[in-house]
Amino acid sequence: MTVTETETPLLPSYVQGEWWTPNEADVQRAAEVRDASTGELLTRVSTEGLDLAGAIEYGRTVGQRNLGELTLHERALKLKELAIYLNERKKDLYEVSFKTGATKVDNMIDVDGGIGVLFTFSSKGRRELPNSNVIIDGNMEPLSKDGSFAGEHIYTRIPGVVAQINAFNFPIWGMLEKFAPAFVAGVPTLVKPATPTGYLTEAVVRMMVESGILPEGSIQLISGSARDLLDHMDYRDMVAFTGSASTANALKAHKNVVEGGVRFTAETDSLNAAILGPDATEDSEEFKAFIRVLVTEMTAKVGQKCTAIRRVLVPKGMEDAVVKAAGARIEDKIVLGDPRAEGVTMGALASTDQLKDVKGAVEKLIAAGGELAYGSLEAPAALTAAGTKEVVADGAFMSPVILKWADADADAVHSTEAFGPATSVLTYEDLDDAVRLAARGEGSLVATVCSNDPQTVQQLTVGIAGHHGRVHVLNRENQFTTTGHGSPVPHLVHGGPGRAGGGEELGGIRSVKHHMQRTAIQGSPNMLTAITGVWHTGADQQIAGCEKYGAQPGNIHPFRKPLDELKIGDALASDLRLVTIEDITDFANETGDTFYAHTDEEAAKANPFFPARVAHGYLLVSWGAGLFVSPAPGPVLANYGLENLRFITPVPAGDSIRITLTAKQITPRVTDEYGEVRWDAVIHNQRDEIVATYDVLTLVTKEWPEMYPKDKEAITK
Amino acid sequence: MTVTETETPLLPSYVQGEWWTPNEADVQRAAEVRDASTGELLTRVSTEGLDLAGAIEYGRTVGQRNLGELTLHERALKLKELAIYLNERKKDLYEVSFKTGATKVDNMIDVDGGIGVLFTFSSKGRRELPNSNVIIDGNMEPLSKDGSFAGEHIYTRIPGVVAQINAFNFPIWGMLEKFAPAFVAGVPTLVKPATPTGYLTEAVVRMMVESGILPEGSIQLISGSARDLLDHMDYRDMVAFTGSASTANALKAHKNVVEGGVRFTAETDSLNAAILGPDATEDSEEFKAFIRVLVTEMTAKVGQKCTAIRRVLVPKGMEDAVVKAAGARIEDKIVLGDPRAEGVTMGALASTDQLKDVKGAVEKLIAAGGELAYGSLEAPAALTAAGTKEVVADGAFMSPVILKWADADADAVHSTEAFGPATSVLTYEDLDDAVRLAARGEGSLVATVCSNDPQTVQQLTVGIAGHHGRVHVLNRENQFTTTGHGSPVPHLVHGGPGRAGGGEELGGIRSVKHHMQRTAIQGSPNMLTAITGVWHTGADQQIAGCEKYGAQPGNIHPFRKPLDELKIGDALASDLRLVTIEDITDFANETGDTFYAHTDEEAAKANPFFPARVAHGYLLVSWGAGLFVSPAPGPVLANYGLENLRFITPVPAGDSIRITLTAKQITPRVTDEYGEVRWDAVIHNQRDEIVATYDVLTLVTKEWPEMYPKDKEAITK
Repeated sequence: MTVTETETPLLPSYVQGEWWTPNEADVQRAAEVRDASTGELLTRVSTEGLDLAGAIEYGRTVGQRNLGELTLHERALKLKELAIYLNERKKDLYEVSFKTGATKVDNMIDVDGGIGVLFTFSSKGRRELPNSNVIIDGNMEPLSKDGSFAGEHIYTRIPGVVAQINAFNFPIWGMLEKFAPAFVAGVPTLVKPATPTGYLTEAVVRMMVESGILPEGSIQLISGSARDLLDHMDYRDMVAFTGSASTANALKAHKNVVEGGVRFTAETDSLNAAILGPDATEDSEEFKAFIRVLVTEMTAKVGQKCTAIRRVLVPKGMEDAVVKAAGARIEDKIVLGDPRAEGVTMGALASTDQLKDVKGAVEKLIAAGGELAYGSLEAPAALTAAGTKEVVADGAFMSPVILKWADADADAVHSTEAFGPATSVLTYEDLDDAVRLAARGEGSLVATVCSNDPQTVQQLTVGIAGHHGRVHVLNRENQFTTTGHGSPVPHLVHGGPGRAGGGEELGGIRSVKHHMQRTAIQGSPNMLTAITGVWHTGADQQIAGCEKYGAQPGNIHPFRKPLDELKIGDALASDLRLVTIEDITDFANETGDTFYAHTDEEAAKANPFFPARVAHGYLLVSWGAGLFVSPAPGPVLANYGLENLRFITPVPAGDSIRITLTAKQITPRVTDEYGEVRWDAVIHNQRDEIVATYDVLTLVTKEWPEMYPKDKEAITK
Repeated sequence: MTVTETETPLLPSYVQGEWWTPNEADVQRAAEVRDASTGELLTRVSTEGLDLAGAIEYGRTVGQRNLGELTLHERALKLKELAIYLNERKKDLYEVSFKTGATKVDNMIDVDGGIGVLFTFSSKGRRELPNSNVIIDGNMEPLSKDGSFAGEHIYTRIPGVVAQINAFNFPIWGMLEKFAPAFVAGVPTLVKPATPTGYLTEAVVRMMVESGILPEGSIQLISGSARDLLDHMDYRDMVAFTGSASTANALKAHKNVVEGGVRFTAETDSLNAAILGPDATEDSEEFKAFIRVLVTEMTAKVGQKCTAIRRVLVPKGMEDAVVKAAGARIEDKIVLGDPRAEGVTMGALASTDQLKDVKGAVEKLIAAGGELAYGSLEAPAALTAAGTKEVVADGAFMSPVILKWADADADAVHSTEAFGPATSVLTYEDLDDAVRLAARGEGSLVATVCSNDPQTVQQLTVGIAGHHGRVHVLNRENQFTTTGHGSPVPHLVHGGPGRAGGGEELGGIRSVKHHMQRTAIQGSPNMLTAITGVWHTGADQQIAGCEKYGAQPGNIHPFRKPLDELKIGDALASDLRLVTIEDITDFANETGDTFYAHTDEEAAKANPFFPARVAHGYLLVSWGAGLFVSPAPGPVLANYGLENLRFITPVPAGDSIRITLTAKQITPRVTDEYGEVRWDAVIHNQRDEIVATYDVLTLVTKEWPEMYPKDKEAITK
């Protein structure tokens, strides 16, 4: 190591609440990291001397404790604050990102895309999860006839840390797409970025720490080798890996994964296919859309995307048209060069090591039968930051290349991933053959199916679904609105079976749950209620209303209670109301719902489900509202919806109905002066048979009369 | 090998559609299997010469093809037929089962319990899944502002086989609990039972094959060693393992799991805890219930249950009371002997090898600090089939034993599983200590929390949930209705993190999905519709009704179409109907729903969500029914429910509403002359703003007028 080299600073890590840099004296070997376009030495990276066991234990203790003091909603809200904070500083991140070879458009994917993941998880976390730390999964399952024993499932966070080992190609998005769901779940993150672009991750983690928004222990950064990290992990912890299959396999074979129960998820190599349907002739809109998507996937991030299209499957005879059209579009649209130069649309690979790897893989493909149908492996001229066009000796530039294959079944094309601006065109005979060839990737992240024929789309998509994590269908309807073949969106699962690593990331709240343990719980309704904080049928109620149906004197109508007074189990029981034939007839006439079951005695009796003319289901729920309403202004602001309504027992004239309404789930909003209350509604008849069950959804103020003030005076008068 | 031995027949396997037995000449070494109570040689087991690669390929081809010709509902229905078939023959299975050492009560768990799983999956499969082969997971996610691009998730079956490697303790239940979900998913099973009790699995597989109910290739049986089975499996396939951690770890480290992407799930060792709450004093109902459950878990199946209680956590000072009460109950209730003898309530361990293992484990625990507080390791006298009481030299009998530990933190008690009628009593200081000790099992299948205090139950259950697959809460409310600590039920997940194997089985439809690949799909609404067979908002409609709102002349009202004519996308558009202030007032008066937002202009305006007095949400959906109804008798029999109702835009007097109803999902029942149709309902106002959205659930006949005939003449008049 020369003196000059040691003058270049070592990249810091952030562990146990502090920034940490190795002692120069202790560093035996540091990796050198260089600017992708110029070769300039930027930083050196080493974790020699870093206490990884201490970092894990810090996460399990301090991180778990601090995150556990917040609810799912509170953590989700912090992601929004963080997203706003980073958004205001993203230009600083762009500047650092240019050094990695990323263009302005690439920055949209990595920087803006990463921040977008935070916004999405913030919003989904608060909209789709309870404001607590226990998530109920699915319905209650009655396990005894008398209702005293039942089961259901809950999710609670895993009791350890998640080590996120990331790839070099998305230093920001690749971190935030894993951090966001872990943070919402309440699980501390240890992030270990890839060395070639780890300085950009360091820059964003530094912003996150400086923001002061995240509870201490939420995130730790390991800048450099993960070394013996897994030696210190156990069944409480999780590893989320992105990178090469060989590294993934080495980690997956670690004793603590095989025997110790460390949860392990991987996203690795993938020979993603794009299939052009037989209907997509050269003059079709689909053909043009297909070419646009193909060229985007070859050139965005210089093809350094695990989701890029590596295998282009086209009907026999279409191969030359596809190569020609793609080549023409590359000529037309692509300007290769330093991302800091004006007009550049395709930057450099992340490093000269990467350049060597990609060229090597393309050469291997050519040796295995691929014909170089477009482009060249020679060092291309690139636009420099100075505005000249030249071959840059230390720049990791490469031209896009397209290979054409006479033998669509050559093994190499289905197993060799050239992780750069390269793709292969293969031909198929018919749809079954296309499915078969796509499956030869042995598990992929994503495939595009391009066709405007629903039957073709159905056959191809269902045919390949079992081998894929995502299928992107492209046709004239979405050609200008698609988010693209190669872009994982936070709402949908990213990951695929087999070669793709077998893992799942993102997918909205699914990925929050990947950081949680699903546990079956069994017990009495009262105990299920105590564990989940959600009222269960059969559990104790504090009933107001009609004493004949269980009300205790002194209980007040639960609609008179704001959120700070309302408790789950607070209930209202109404008295009976008689349904007459005139009521049914009037309701039919007024609503226009003159269905024969309500209006024609003989026809109603002939229907297999009705004993006679019966009351409308909508009459029952409308009367139900009339039986539970508390008319004067109060904390209940609105009934915004209704769920899971089932009509169980028909109500002929002469029967009576009553309703019981019980506060089931209370979800105060972290950003508003009100929240949601879900009420369990049961309508009985005079024989105590269940007539209908449903959930009523309302908005209720947190305090009353100090309520959400649009015009407080008017309401509280 | 002696002549006598070869006279005992080899146990057949069932592969590639045929029963197969090794050639005696080829068999180098066959395992001998003996009656658990008498030591009589029953059969010999070997797979030497069996073509395992061929069996896998047969499953992937013939099995996948035959199962794929049926829908989820059709396969689920076959499970019911199979359950009825086996139920009629279960006495034959009991007879075989006695040989394994199982008592009549044990047979209820293994034989009846296994058949019960078939019934449950048959019912759940038809009630909770679509009648097709594509399952939609979660909601559609809009991905473009104009609605032309959206995403969602589907499940389709994995394209391979599932190898089920089972433990010796539940030869029937252990097979059927894995077979049932795989079969519903449409994935062929290769079952490999454990050698000591594989003859009972063979007996039931023989019945299943003879029944002719299952499509050929649904199930294959490997009687004997799995040998090189995993060498032939890849990412399309799955292994579901139950047994020892050491075997699980060896399989999990197999190249085809680590590198080849074989899906692997395991259910292994587990040091399950039962925690007695501090409130459960000796005279409490909870204490008595706790002792009952504890003794059941020690003696049912002679404690050979992966879910049995191995660690009893009690408040300091309660240890002697628990040992004493449990001992007294054992004395009172347990009669040890040959299950064929009258009155026996606890049989033999599965083999003398097992007996040796269990005794060895108990001795290890004693050496590590456990005090033998109840029972003895000496060979006990057992009731023989002949009615005598004697020590049977070749019988695998063992007395129940309870160990007491002075040091609750001794490593051995948290890591050594004595797989027999043995348990250990430990004491805890406070609830945090109880949670900490339960977690020292490093991942368990199940724990019991016994307390009648909701706060205690909440703290213990949420505290240990992350370390457990199931938590069973026991109190006075469910003491006589609980299905038990040790009984996995088909509705709830079975499996646990860490030492328990990290897998999940059962859990209702969750386990069907474990045999499927989740795939994100993206595309236009028309293409999502084509792939899933379910209509998506924005996809094409064939509209009848009001031409102003899109109806094409000649289209008939979709309520006039039976299932054999109705297509998804068939729709009805109504005309507008004006809402007057009188309508709102009348509805308020008639229903009784006089909420101020409908009756008091000033108060309504002061509410943050309403512009003025507005129509009731229930008025809107009632009028909606009036706008879409087709009054005369027809194929639509009933509206049985409604889901996902959301009120979006308030409707003040002077606004008008119209409705569009579209056939979204059609689910013909396999056992009835009708099926479910789910209709997408959207109410718009005169400005084309969305007022409300919901799903209407109806029952519709398959044919009309050849309909479900209660009184056809009357209806079709």
